[in-house]
Amino acid sequence: MLELISEHGCYGGEQRFYRHQSTAIGLPMRFSIFLPAQASAGRVPALFYLAGLTCTEETFVIKGGAQRVAAELGMILIAPDTSPRGADVAGESDNWDLGVGAGFYVNATETLWQQHYQMYSYVLELYDLVIQEFPIKADSIGITGHSMGGHGALVMALRNPDRFRSVSAFAPICAPSHCPWGIKAFSAYLGNDQQAWRSYDASALMQDMHTPFPDGILIDQGLSDQFFPHQLLPESFEAACKQAQQPITLRRHAGYDHGYYFISTFIENHLRFHHQNLQSDRG
Amino acid sequence: MLELISEHGCYGGEQRFYRHQSTAIGLPMRFSIFLPAQASAGRVPALFYLAGLTCTEETFVIKGGAQRVAAELGMILIAPDTSPRGADVAGESDNWDLGVGAGFYVNATETLWQQHYQMYSYVLELYDLVIQEFPIKADSIGITGHSMGGHGALVMALRNPDRFRSVSAFAPICAPSHCPWGIKAFSAYLGNDQQAWRSYDASALMQDMHTPFPDGILIDQGLSDQFFPHQLLPESFEAACKQAQQPITLRRHAGYDHGYYFISTFIENHLRFHHQNLQSDRG
Repeated sequence: MLELISEHGCYGGEQRFYRHQSTAIGLPMRFSIFLPAQASAGRVPALFYLAGLTCTEETFVIKGGAQRVAAELGMILIAPDTSPRGADVAGESDNWDLGVGAGFYVNATETLWQQHYQMYSYVLELYDLVIQEFPIKADSIGITGHSMGGHGALVMALRNPDRFRSVSAFAPICAPSHCPWGIKAFSAYLGNDQQAWRSYDASALMQDMHTPFPDGILIDQGLSDQFFPHQLLPESFEAACKQAQQPITLRRHAGYDHGYYFISTFIENHLRFHHQNLQSDRG
Repeated sequence: MLELISEHGCYGGEQRFYRHQSTAIGLPMRFSIFLPAQASAGRVPALFYLAGLTCTEETFVIKGGAQRVAAELGMILIAPDTSPRGADVAGESDNWDLGVGAGFYVNATETLWQQHYQMYSYVLELYDLVIQEFPIKADSIGITGHSMGGHGALVMALRNPDRFRSVSAFAPICAPSHCPWGIKAFSAYLGNDQQAWRSYDASALMQDMHTPFPDGILIDQGLSDQFFPHQLLPESFEAACKQAQQPITLRRHAGYDHGYYFISTFIENHLRFHHQNLQSDRG
C-alpha cells in the first residue's frame, strides 16, 4: 500500500518519503515523514505540517530545520503534498496560486476540479493512514502549516478538534473569503456560493465556536512579509478568537518575511508548543 | 561594488545574498552571507562553506540549518557559488560533474577553461572582499565544505593555513587524483600533468606537511553514502595525516548518506569545533 521512495538518516532518526494511492484524490500522492529514534521504542506524538503555494512534501523537510527538535522531543513529522499531481485539469499549471501546488486544502465542488482536487478529505485520509502504519499516539496529534498551509492547518483543526489536539501556524491565510488568493481559489474550487466558503475560512469558523483549543493557538507573522497586509489578515482571526473566547498568541516579528528563513527561526517554538499541548491531559 | 540581491531576517540576524564583479573569474559572481546579531556590535569570527557538485551559494543556506548555531555563537557564514556562471565554454552544462556547478575550486590551466574557471583564486578574492566589507575578525576565519566543497575546503586550508585557521569537511573528496570525479575534472581543467594535480589534492598536500593544524581536523562521513567507497577515499587523507602527524577526527556514521540530512545533523558539531579553534590562541 505504501511505497517507500527514499529514506535518509537524519538526527538519529529517519527522514522518509512515501507514495501511495489515495482514495480521496483518486491518484498517487506523496508525503514525507520524519521518524525520531524514539519511534522505534513505542508510540510517540505527531505533528502534521501543511505547506504553502508551489510547495511539495519535500519543502518543509529541506528548509524547515524541524527534525532537530523533533528528534529531541520524540515527535513524528508528517508533510503531505499541496495538491494532486497529474489530475490533468485544463490549465491546472498555468497559475502558481491555483491548481497544481495550490490545492488550498478544500474539497472542490466545481465540475472542473472536483474529480481529484479533494485535499481536505485527503489530509484526513492521510491522518488515518499514518496512524495505522506508523507508531503514532493517536490521541497526540497536532497540526501546523505555512501560508496556504497555515490556512489549511487552522481549518483542519477547527473542523476536527477531536483529531487535531493542538494547532499553530506560520503566516497563515486567515480569512481566505476576503483576500485575493482565497477569493480566486474558492471561486474556482467551490463556486460563487459564499456560504460554502465559510466552512473553509478559519475566521468564519471561529466565529461560531467557543474556546475549541483551551491550550491556545500559536501564530507567528513576519512584519516584512510582502503578503501580510492584503493576503493574510491575521487581525480577522484574532478578532474571531476574541469573540469565541479562544486564547491566541499572535506574535508579530519585525524584520521577518514570508519565507523559510522566518519559519526555521521559529519552528522550535512551535514544536515545543505542540509537544507541551499534546502531553497535557485535556480530560 | 557589492550588489545586495536580497536579505531575510533569520534567527535574529540577516541572511543576505550578494552579486559582485569578480576579478579572478572575470564575470559576476554570487555569494551568500549570514550576519548574526553580534556582528552589529563588532567584529566576529567567520566560517566559509564550499558546496558540492550542482550546488549554488543558496544550497547550504537553505538546507544546512547552520544559522541557528551561528546566531548563538556569533559567527558569520559565507558561501560562494560552485563555478562561474555564463562563461560560455562549449559544453559546460552537459555534465553535472564538470563545468557549471562543478568548478572544483581549482585554477584551470587548459585553454578551454582557463579564462573564467579560476575558482581557487576566486575563493581567496572573496576572502579579501568579505574581510573588507563585513565585520569579520580577520584572524578568526575557518573553512568547511561538502563533497567537492569538502575537497575545496581541505585544499584551501592546507595551502593557506595563515588565512584559514580551522578546517573541517563533510564527506569530502579526499584524493581527487585517484577517484573518477577528480580524474575527470583535473584532466579537463589541469591537463594530464599529474604533478600539477598534487597542489589540488588534499591527501598529496598533507603528505608534504607537518601538523599544519595542531587543533585538529574534523571530518564526518556517512556509511550509507553511495559515493563513499570509490569517490571520497577518506582513508587516503587519514593515512596522509598520520604521516604528517596531523591530528584528525574522522567520524564514520552508520545510516547517513551523502545529502543535506546528513550535513544538517552534524553541522552544529562543526560550528562549535571551528568556534573553539578560532577562539584559541595559537600564538
